[in-house]
Amino acid sequence: MSEVLIVGSVAYDGLKTPYGSVPRTLGWAGTYSSLAACLFAPVRMVGVVGDDFKEADLKMLRRKGINTDLVTREKGKTFFWKGYYENDMAVAHTVKIDLGVFERFDPRITGRSRNIPYVFLAAIHPDLQMNVLKQMVDPKFVVLDTRDLWINITKPSLIKVLKKTDLAVVNDQEIRLLTGEMHLMKGARALQKMGPKIVIVKKGEHGAMMFGPGWTFLSPAVPLDYVVDPTGAGDTFAGAFIGYLARANKINELTLKQAVIAGNLVASFTVQGFGTKSIGALNKAKLKKRSVEYHKFASIPKVNL
Amino acid sequence: MSEVLIVGSVAYDGLKTPYGSVPRTLGWAGTYSSLAACLFAPVRMVGVVGDDFKEADLKMLRRKGINTDLVTREKGKTFFWKGYYENDMAVAHTVKIDLGVFERFDPRITGRSRNIPYVFLAAIHPDLQMNVLKQMVDPKFVVLDTRDLWINITKPSLIKVLKKTDLAVVNDQEIRLLTGEMHLMKGARALQKMGPKIVIVKKGEHGAMMFGPGWTFLSPAVPLDYVVDPTGAGDTFAGAFIGYLARANKINELTLKQAVIAGNLVASFTVQGFGTKSIGALNKAKLKKRSVEYHKFASIPKVNL
Repeated sequence: MSEVLIVGSVAYDGLKTPYGSVPRTLGWAGTYSSLAACLFAPVRMVGVVGDDFKEADLKMLRRKGINTDLVTREKGKTFFWKGYYENDMAVAHTVKIDLGVFERFDPRITGRSRNIPYVFLAAIHPDLQMNVLKQMVDPKFVVLDTRDLWINITKPSLIKVLKKTDLAVVNDQEIRLLTGEMHLMKGARALQKMGPKIVIVKKGEHGAMMFGPGWTFLSPAVPLDYVVDPTGAGDTFAGAFIGYLARANKINELTLKQAVIAGNLVASFTVQGFGTKSIGALNKAKLKKRSVEYHKFASIPKVNL
Repeated sequence: MSEVLIVGSVAYDGLKTPYGSVPRTLGWAGTYSSLAACLFAPVRMVGVVGDDFKEADLKMLRRKGINTDLVTREKGKTFFWKGYYENDMAVAHTVKIDLGVFERFDPRITGRSRNIPYVFLAAIHPDLQMNVLKQMVDPKFVVLDTRDLWINITKPSLIKVLKKTDLAVVNDQEIRLLTGEMHLMKGARALQKMGPKIVIVKKGEHGAMMFGPGWTFLSPAVPLDYVVDPTGAGDTFAGAFIGYLARANKINELTLKQAVIAGNLVASFTVQGFGTKSIGALNKAKLKKRSVEYHKFASIPKVNL
């Protein structure tokens, strides 16, 4: 068992989907990925919040075993995002965005946190991602997430960080923007040449495809009877992924594949509740039950040809 | 080992994709599905062609072991379709369609063909599908394909045939049109109540999902370095599927799952050549090689939760 350091945004969300709404709930990448990773391994969260950040939310994170010593509280407002989803829930429409203290986020990794072996750089400005990496002492495995915004406006910086990462998590649109390749597999191979030996392409309801050195793997998404709020699914996936690897503390084809499956399993809970409601209430028993169902659904029998 | 009867369109295609074009090549559902099914079991093809139908094409089908005694030759032109695909190759755009003798297609099943246990009704007018079923003597397993056209203009007829089928193969758009359900799983459950105990939803590059009585299964599509012509992929899938079942001559959860995988494997060849070029040149050795790669790609290891 090893440990995970997670650097990412912590914010409040105002959410509306066809299935309901919440005016203000804890969210964003740092939150979802930490809540997912802590199901498997100790998590040290790095972030910034404002003076309006609720003590109860901090307590909730700590109760989950997440170390929040590196979540600093600054004068000003906590990052706030308001948005909605239409019927297909594939695209989040932004109504309002107020970066607050997050605009001046300057992650400081101190003391023994600099020696944490597993690092997840959630989708923040690539200069900040690089800043974090420079403070870490010889990390064992670095996972990077990004988004179209950073590819569009800070590509040169992103390319520099990619060189220092072991694994990149992207979606199909991001991989096209990054590599210029329309074909997914060619794009993944091109991205591998930019630094990360391993590339994971998140395909939403179609699962996640992983490209390793000389092998490819697909884990279908968990089939769900209902989805109420897709917010945080990708962050949950990445958090559970790196948490699983940190617990195994071994990087090979098998543990990587298992970690992708763990990512899909945990993410399937996130989307069945508003905000962090469902992932916050997740436990090992529920996870094991869903895993049994999943293996029935996705196991590929031998064929007689 | 049992036998398959396949009723469907036999036509010539004029095809253009971003990777090339062919002015006139053998195609459509009856052709592709028969070429796929014959890899596994004896096939009796039911169809109609015009007096311009090339003897060489008939010979090619027979050389594959396909029995074409019920492919009648009528005075007039063979069905011809001309179309093209744009970059994403997800949608076929029609330029010209000339039904020819297919407009008067009146499938006659005679003699011992009426006792063939495995029946594939490719996507033709549902009244013709029903007409065929009425001629069959107690078939063991009936698979039905359809298309948006028939759902839109002949829904009452289609609903009647569905009551007499064991398995329906649809895509996500067709299932919505048929059931009115936007959610795939709910749509599949609704379709199961309309007759077919088993429903397969073809999801193109995302594979095929099968809904059985009380279980669900996903077989991802084979990941491909290149695709040159998507024509016939769905028909190939269905043909290989029923061919595999006929060879096993046993319908249960395992053989159904294996048959879906066989469908995906064989269809992955079809799209790598223009028209029937690649499926026509397929053999067991190539299929076995791809199956080994596929199982590495899609096998889901146990996870430690």
